[in-house]
Amino acid sequence: MTSRRKPRPFDRIALIGIGLIGSSLARVIKKHKLTHEIAISTRRRRTLDAARKLKLGTSYHMKAAQAVKGADLIILCTPLGANEAVAREIGPRLKPGAIVSDVGSCKVSVIKDVGPHLPEDVHLVPAHPIAGTEHSGPESGFDTLFERRWCVLTPEDGTDEAAVNKVADLWQTAGSNVEIMDAEHHDQVLAITSHLPHLISYTIVDTATELERELQKEVVRFSAGGFRDFTRIAASDPTMWRDVFLSNRDAVLEILGRFTEDLTALQRAIRRGDGDLLHERFTRTRTLRREVIDAKQADTDPKQRQK
Amino acid sequence: MTSRRKPRPFDRIALIGIGLIGSSLARVIKKHKLTHEIAISTRRRRTLDAARKLKLGTSYHMKAAQAVKGADLIILCTPLGANEAVAREIGPRLKPGAIVSDVGSCKVSVIKDVGPHLPEDVHLVPAHPIAGTEHSGPESGFDTLFERRWCVLTPEDGTDEAAVNKVADLWQTAGSNVEIMDAEHHDQVLAITSHLPHLISYTIVDTATELERELQKEVVRFSAGGFRDFTRIAASDPTMWRDVFLSNRDAVLEILGRFTEDLTALQRAIRRGDGDLLHERFTRTRTLRREVIDAKQADTDPKQRQK
Repeated sequence: MTSRRKPRPFDRIALIGIGLIGSSLARVIKKHKLTHEIAISTRRRRTLDAARKLKLGTSYHMKAAQAVKGADLIILCTPLGANEAVAREIGPRLKPGAIVSDVGSCKVSVIKDVGPHLPEDVHLVPAHPIAGTEHSGPESGFDTLFERRWCVLTPEDGTDEAAVNKVADLWQTAGSNVEIMDAEHHDQVLAITSHLPHLISYTIVDTATELERELQKEVVRFSAGGFRDFTRIAASDPTMWRDVFLSNRDAVLEILGRFTEDLTALQRAIRRGDGDLLHERFTRTRTLRREVIDAKQADTDPKQRQK
Repeated sequence: MTSRRKPRPFDRIALIGIGLIGSSLARVIKKHKLTHEIAISTRRRRTLDAARKLKLGTSYHMKAAQAVKGADLIILCTPLGANEAVAREIGPRLKPGAIVSDVGSCKVSVIKDVGPHLPEDVHLVPAHPIAGTEHSGPESGFDTLFERRWCVLTPEDGTDEAAVNKVADLWQTAGSNVEIMDAEHHDQVLAITSHLPHLISYTIVDTATELERELQKEVVRFSAGGFRDFTRIAASDPTMWRDVFLSNRDAVLEILGRFTEDLTALQRAIRRGDGDLLHERFTRTRTLRREVIDAKQADTDPKQRQK
């Protein structure tokens, strides 16, 4: 039996997937009493048991279709690659008027994969909280993860305004700065700010992984010179990131092409000893850094605050 | 007049160049009373005035040749590209038995550029404190910069042992972990741990700098997703880094070649939708990250501690 004394924004929220983001969201929802019931679903028994042990929900389900029964808000917290199968499974069980949202790092693919499987009277409000750590799993979550971070919503034109507002309110309660954006534009921006940096970090650590063992040991010892930052980024969840690159393929390949051209120009300058070109390129990057500082991003990163 | 009451490891230390590293070193030397006189030299009047205002030395010189007169330890803290000219200038003025050291990020080039200009009775002990921040200039220095950081010494075979020990003692007093290494090996390791990460960071920020203005603004706003870390690295001193890439050209081009091959393989996997390859690469990078954590590098970075 759940308490019905005070009105809450939602009656039943279903969280499909309960990793770092899902479990952090569950903690936020509990803390702020945003619903009467939190139904948690995940395909792995062990993860579900962990969520139960952490008391993240009010009911636990191996099948997403069961979790969404009667839910007025469903949030997909699974890797992007699972979206279509989950949408296909839950589509027929959704309550009229329900809102379906998600937390994925790419937004065009969510609209494409999930949208077609939802009934007409269900509202799709895709969301991307730009937050995370290099840790995975329900144990890694914490209720301040989203504080002072962006959460980008990418509803399609004509989406029910009340539904969008309810999702926006939830993220504002979590402490996020909510921004509404076109899905394609989101994917293009994130390809630069997040997807390419991750791809590069994975690559450089992978390159080091293939070094002869003795040299690799030295690289580990002296990693503080810059390499260490890359290893942190490259420790992120492999499944999530595989799906990001497959889902946002075109935008990633486009920016990767530009990056490779620029890297080749610097490589050529190094080979030819063109110090002027190097100096000019290294100088003009400083302006952008100042803008990043001005944007106060540098000081509001909870990953740093957590340390 | 300087006090001669207590014995000190050195009588006169000359610092040629007084930027972030030089001024931090001056603070360490003063704090631990490692010498009676600190002679500071830099070619820029404004920088010299700043050093004087900060009371970093006991005498201030526009000419390196004057600063090194009577010095028993000379430390070059200039960008690598200035080494040869400085060595040519100071060579004839050096006291017999004096030690010449430096703080450059590449070591083969120091031996090549400085060595030939030193008299037979002067000892060359190249050093590389692996420490820094993205700030430059004498005002940015602080006396804990080198604490719990590596300082690699790369004396050639047959270098006077007492001279090596005196330089090692200085860096241990600064709080560093001293490591002795072959210069070529040092340059190879640092090409991976530091030079390539810097080159890549400069490149990605440079790529963003060339985006259309509207998109660039969004990149700045949402920079916390990974891009922010790169902007910090790419804000490092342009002259220093130009010289690093010109000085360590071969090792940088070698590792850059491997990196580009690996990046091309991932690019191909993204284009072809090869999720298995992506997942496998993203998984095996985790091992190296754990080794980096075990090496305790991750927790002893003063840049983080400073925040």
